[in-house]
Amino acid sequence: MTIHYYWEDLVPGSVRELGSLSVSAEEIKEFAEQYDPQPFHLDELAGRRSIYGNLCASGWQTCALAMRLTVTNFLNESSSMGSPGLESLRWLKPVYPGDTLTLKHTTIESRGMRRRPDIGLVRSSWEMFNQNGDKVLHMEGWGMFRRREPATAEEIERLNAERSGA
Amino acid sequence: MTIHYYWEDLVPGSVRELGSLSVSAEEIKEFAEQYDPQPFHLDELAGRRSIYGNLCASGWQTCALAMRLTVTNFLNESSSMGSPGLESLRWLKPVYPGDTLTLKHTTIESRGMRRRPDIGLVRSSWEMFNQNGDKVLHMEGWGMFRRREPATAEEIERLNAERSGA
Repeated sequence: MTIHYYWEDLVPGSVRELGSLSVSAEEIKEFAEQYDPQPFHLDELAGRRSIYGNLCASGWQTCALAMRLTVTNFLNESSSMGSPGLESLRWLKPVYPGDTLTLKHTTIESRGMRRRPDIGLVRSSWEMFNQNGDKVLHMEGWGMFRRREPATAEEIERLNAERSGA
Repeated sequence: MTIHYYWEDLVPGSVRELGSLSVSAEEIKEFAEQYDPQPFHLDELAGRRSIYGNLCASGWQTCALAMRLTVTNFLNESSSMGSPGLESLRWLKPVYPGDTLTLKHTTIESRGMRRRPDIGLVRSSWEMFNQNGDKVLHMEGWGMFRRREPATAEEIERLNAERSGA
């Protein structure tokens, strides 16, 4: 795969539309049987009787669907080296069968790594919306990306100074 | 299903061992094809050539496996009403084919809901370890549980006072 995006290309404030997908009742139940067998993720009737009012997707499936869009429309063309984790994850609305979900990625913050001049860190947000414009998912977290050019001696000096509080 | 755990039973400081499971190369690849098609989750050779040194599971699959243990060994016997989200999620180590993962759940904090005397909130941590005792996943977040008995008038008064800062 060709790398189109290195750390330097992920500029704070930049927004990427990462596409959309639909989720079916069959996909919701299949995921739930394997990973989240709560009644309202497995069965229409149990869903209708729950506080969600209908069969709805596991929150973890919603995250996994956001990841599919992120990988296919961004990470697989980038120098991504993975993520240490998230600082926040909110399941804001249920995801129902037939929903069409659209993902928006915003680069919030960018910084070099003191000990790895070849790698940079990026803090991003992911917002997923359904076909009614309701936000169903909001996540914020860090990713690691290889740099096109390694950090300069000046940048490493500055990062060391920040680290030591000087 | 019989409910064994209501909000009142989730006492801060209490620890639950939520069991263990193993993950195979086939399960890792199947999840990756559907949700996280990065080369090191799809293919042994690409895994060996990556910073992870081997085929490894999507971080989202690790979360989903933790959810499977949480649901089958706890939530499906509880009055759980779902979760608004997480405050922290850390993928600390890669998960490799054949790893056996063990999950520990700790109740950290518990509080009533001002507007819903029949529901309480619980903040929990989930820690997942592999067969070598390495922590691979750490999460913290809130869950909602129905109460065995609704909040008393005194408790609601106190929650209202906290809310208004009085």
